Amino acid sequence: MTDDPLVLRHDADGVATLTLNRPETRNALSGGMLRALLATFAALAGDETVRVVVLAGAGPAFCAGHDLKELRAADYAGAYVDALFADCAQLMQAIVHLPKPVIARVHGIATAAGAQLVASCDLAVAAEEARFATPGVNIGLFCSTPMVALSRNIAPKQAMEMLLTGEMIDAATALRFGLVNAVVPAAELVAHTAALAGRIAAKSPLTLAIGKEAFYRQREMDLAEAYAYTRGVMARNLEAEDAHEGIAAFLDKRAPSWCGR
Amino acid sequence: MTDDPLVLRHDADGVATLTLNRPETRNALSGGMLRALLATFAALAGDETVRVVVLAGAGPAFCAGHDLKELRAADYAGAYVDALFADCAQLMQAIVHLPKPVIARVHGIATAAGAQLVASCDLAVAAEEARFATPGVNIGLFCSTPMVALSRNIAPKQAMEMLLTGEMIDAATALRFGLVNAVVPAAELVAHTAALAGRIAAKSPLTLAIGKEAFYRQREMDLAEAYAYTRGVMARNLEAEDAHEGIAAFLDKRAPSWCGR
Amino acid sequence: MTDDPLVLRHDADGVATLTLNRPETRNALSGGMLRALLATFAALAGDETVRVVVLAGAGPAFCAGHDLKELRAADYAGAYVDALFADCAQLMQAIVHLPKPVIARVHGIATAAGAQLVASCDLAVAAEEARFATPGVNIGLFCSTPMVALSRNIAPKQAMEMLLTGEMIDAATALRFGLVNAVVPAAELVAHTAALAGRIAAKSPLTLAIGKEAFYRQREMDLAEAYAYTRGVMARNLEAEDAHEGIAAFLDKRAPSWCGR
Repeated sequence: MTDDPLVLRHDADGVATLTLNRPETRNALSGGMLRALLATFAALAGDETVRVVVLAGAGPAFCAGHDLKELRAADYAGAYVDALFADCAQLMQAIVHLPKPVIARVHGIATAAGAQLVASCDLAVAAEEARFATPGVNIGLFCSTPMVALSRNIAPKQAMEMLLTGEMIDAATALRFGLVNAVVPAAELVAHTAALAGRIAAKSPLTLAIGKEAFYRQREMDLAEAYAYTRGVMARNLEAEDAHEGIAAFLDKRAPSWCGR
Repeated sequence: MTDDPLVLRHDADGVATLTLNRPETRNALSGGMLRALLATFAALAGDETVRVVVLAGAGPAFCAGHDLKELRAADYAGAYVDALFADCAQLMQAIVHLPKPVIARVHGIATAAGAQLVASCDLAVAAEEARFATPGVNIGLFCSTPMVALSRNIAPKQAMEMLLTGEMIDAATALRFGLVNAVVPAAELVAHTAALAGRIAAKSPLTLAIGKEAFYRQREMDLAEAYAYTRGVMARNLEAEDAHEGIAAFLDKRAPSWCGR
Repeated sequence: MTDDPLVLRHDADGVATLTLNRPETRNALSGGMLRALLATFAALAGDETVRVVVLAGAGPAFCAGHDLKELRAADYAGAYVDALFADCAQLMQAIVHLPKPVIARVHGIATAAGAQLVASCDLAVAAEEARFATPGVNIGLFCSTPMVALSRNIAPKQAMEMLLTGEMIDAATALRFGLVNAVVPAAELVAHTAALAGRIAAKSPLTLAIGKEAFYRQREMDLAEAYAYTRGVMARNLEAEDAHEGIAAFLDKRAPSWCGR
């Protein structure tokens, strides 16, 4: 046991970097870790100084999913286990609903709910040596919640192969499947992700918030409904001072200055 | 200002080629351009001489999206702007609902609503130097309507990267993402697209109309509903003279002769 | 005419291999073939000795789709044709609903409803020389039911190109599109597929059944609904003896011994 914080947070230049901080469990999503992440994301949601979030892991792995010892200790059922899976599902949706882009910065392994974290982020950058799996099938516990996020990121036969075999895919395969946006040498992972986060942090935070929310909402609509909805989003976005400033700056060939309204 | 038509139409061998004709604005989708395109697609819908539509742009670009000067002149709101976005959403859906295949022939840039045009077409062929972006985030106006079409064409992390960074992707990346069907040298773009259009124009126009409508309708259904619906589509298609002719021609090893019924 | 069984079944080591057995018609999905397959899948559903199903074709082709001579002989309509398409749609859904993984082992051509079979299976392995098409458009009969499965496997512009041109794609393209999981030399097709089937057959059959059902059900839900549903699936899965055994075996670093409960 340790008193080290479960989740480290480091803010710089509008980017909050969260680091899962239990290397000895490969950053397993224990009940405590899930609650710490939920609290952190709740705090980030209303923090106007943060424009982009990077999610990373300390030690040799990004995240190895649930803590199996904890599940066994709880005898696989009951209020504790219910709360664990409720918190996990809430965390994944908190990432989707956070009004700021979230980038997974993946090294080592991202497995089970750890792969689900990657899939739930808006963007993901992986080190060349990173590997991904949904191996629940190997322990008799199918990755049924991870597959919610996974199957919304990659093609069904690719998802099914990961889910039915439980085998690792490498970073290049994850890139081909669309599970990550970029693969870089391990030595460049931090810098590459920081550069990506920095470029996005330079945008209007209001515009990012409007766009991210609309992206996930319109995806679940049919075409006509999606267009009716996003037309309203565009009209509201056009009323914002940041849109007027951005368009004026573009037409005047100067850099925009965002006010976040 | 110019009196040149906003949209040029050239028909040959059952293929109507539409050319956006405002090179000096990189074929911006001004209010006038949108109305001209809507009128053109309305005319095409019932034109039995046209079997396939090719959509192209004159000058250095395919299409650069909305006309920002027009938005600023209208003060970003009001009836004019409402009509602009209503027309734009209607145009994109008119392409989807047109009972004939539409092929985007893309060179130069296709950005914002220009990228949306490409995504809304049934097929797309790009020149090697073509580039695509949804850069609204750079001017404080998220590409919320373009993303309706974009996110129905490519994987979510790929779409999110385009939307959150606003950066260009090249033609090879667009091919990998599934946003275009083929990438060819610029010198071969017209011929390659014409050959593709010609092969499709040789099919039964009735069959193409039945299939295209069914494709987009069944996509929005669950599996059981989609099968119930398409079984009915198959039964109706089988009653058509063109199906009887096509099957007989195949079994008799001769070329079919379509009557369009 | 022949008295040979329409579908051969060979069981070994928990893997049932079904072979479409009408090489002279390239294993066309005649009324008889569809009924034989439906009966076979119905028998497999409750057969506890079978953990994984492999679907293959005898002779030069995997499956060439419907039997056009049969459609013409039935005059393209009436109770016989209705039953044919009802059986075909039921077969495709029986594969999806079978509580065991189904792997297509594809060589030669898989066209029209034959390509739909591949798309309907959970996984697919193809020989390098395999080719795929939805060529109904060439005979005036759009592949409207095949596209239900196809468009749930590959990107829309890729599906539309196959549907509108009717042209063949090769195995490498099918792999890039996500229609198959792997492409191997023809000489290795049987061994490669057997190895994949064997690895999956070594998992808990209860876990596979839980996971496969949940995969297809949650895909048709929105995100919040999918998480609410799969949380319940996880809780039920955690109550299973196989989950307790699997987790204990993992923590104890030994191989699990499944009881299927």
